[in-house]
Amino acid sequence: MSDSPIGIFDSGIGGLTVVKEIRRILPNENIVYLGDTARLPYGTKSIDAIIEFSLENTEFLISRGAKFIIIACYSSTSVALDIVRKNVNVPVIGVIQPGVEKAVELTKNHKVGVVGTSLTIYSGAYEKAFRDLDERCEVLGKACPLFVSLVEEGWLDHPATDLIAQTYLKPLKDDNVDTVLLGCTHFPLLMPVFRKIMGKINYVDASREVGSKVADELRRLELQRDAKNGTLMIYLTDLSMNFKEIGERFLSEPMKNFSRVALKGS
Amino acid sequence: MSDSPIGIFDSGIGGLTVVKEIRRILPNENIVYLGDTARLPYGTKSIDAIIEFSLENTEFLISRGAKFIIIACYSSTSVALDIVRKNVNVPVIGVIQPGVEKAVELTKNHKVGVVGTSLTIYSGAYEKAFRDLDERCEVLGKACPLFVSLVEEGWLDHPATDLIAQTYLKPLKDDNVDTVLLGCTHFPLLMPVFRKIMGKINYVDASREVGSKVADELRRLELQRDAKNGTLMIYLTDLSMNFKEIGERFLSEPMKNFSRVALKGS
Repeated sequence: MSDSPIGIFDSGIGGLTVVKEIRRILPNENIVYLGDTARLPYGTKSIDAIIEFSLENTEFLISRGAKFIIIACYSSTSVALDIVRKNVNVPVIGVIQPGVEKAVELTKNHKVGVVGTSLTIYSGAYEKAFRDLDERCEVLGKACPLFVSLVEEGWLDHPATDLIAQTYLKPLKDDNVDTVLLGCTHFPLLMPVFRKIMGKINYVDASREVGSKVADELRRLELQRDAKNGTLMIYLTDLSMNFKEIGERFLSEPMKNFSRVALKGS
Repeated sequence: MSDSPIGIFDSGIGGLTVVKEIRRILPNENIVYLGDTARLPYGTKSIDAIIEFSLENTEFLISRGAKFIIIACYSSTSVALDIVRKNVNVPVIGVIQPGVEKAVELTKNHKVGVVGTSLTIYSGAYEKAFRDLDERCEVLGKACPLFVSLVEEGWLDHPATDLIAQTYLKPLKDDNVDTVLLGCTHFPLLMPVFRKIMGKINYVDASREVGSKVADELRRLELQRDAKNGTLMIYLTDLSMNFKEIGERFLSEPMKNFSRVALKGS
């Protein structure tokens, strides 16, 4: 049993989709969220920079008493998960492994497509995670950087979005993947477009899978919180023009407790 | 006369288009360029953050002996130019004023369209600059954030780019602007798309106008360098995967002298 909070970080506010899932599955848990909005996005930065940022973010969450760390950022998970694990004494999970486990469970023909930002795809982190779990899986990674901008622009049903998705998803369709793993916090909002182009196959939203994984781990480690009504505290390294509006879209509840925090390097 | 360098900063490497112009017009000048690639883009950050970043960047260039500062970033110029000016003892110019002067010179019907990132457009900096120069000008600002991602993805002639441009540029076309000011370092690469949709009107690439403005000022202040073959030193706060390839596309010459630098907050 532990009243200490679960610490969650992301490069921005997209990771609030993970917070939403944790709040749904584990309503008793206190949560401290850190969004590194001053330095987002991570996907266009160097691996060294992402590792440095990830360690700083983790240090902040630990200083707030975190009993468990969730890396809700795909770029961070891709290149910094192992190093973050070595640097702290609490359990750390990323957003890649839980989605991969779900995809392996769902696929019948062992052909899985993974879509994400360029860094996530080119890091090879997904290929490695699939290989470690089920060698039969053939993984087709496709970098789709424009999807992030389209979601942020709110053009979910613009004809250009369909055209872009047709170009991006064609190799996955040609290869007859029966499962697509959405490896970016923003992509679930494009689900209707994916369905239109790829049809009735399996879709894995990794953010959703993280929740049940964390619940299992907390139980196993006897780290759950028993008191009711967990709190949520949100820290952001920058408060941009419309962070609250976009944040609440991801979180599906009002953002009540938030404040700006300055990390060493943000 | 002064051998000291001209200092130029941008949030990333797009500002190398300004460097290219300065090198062409003022080949004798030494240049120190700082790209804050660890924190790019600025357009999605808060005004406070952009001001803070801009002051840090300026401080770095001054510490390298800059005799003249050029803010090659549109977001920075929009919100931080006046504050940077107050903080240093050398002349500072931004990328907005020179483009506005050119547009005022070219427009016949006094209807000018300005395209840029959301922050540049919503800051109102362009409206103010036009109002101060020629009250007759009617300015139609249009935020086009997806253009940045399309240029970075290299989709300059994808059908989706045409569709997106049609949506973005429609209000400018409907309003019969006779001049379009490209208020973002990335947009000149989309010139063929602009021409296809807007037709034969005037286009102002502000980066190009900055060069002659700086030449005039250096002459007026007697700060030119007389020795031949100015040097170019490039500092970046992060060296990402493909910065050199993209940088050379903007610069049109090989990037020879570059190194990573850590600012206080980057």
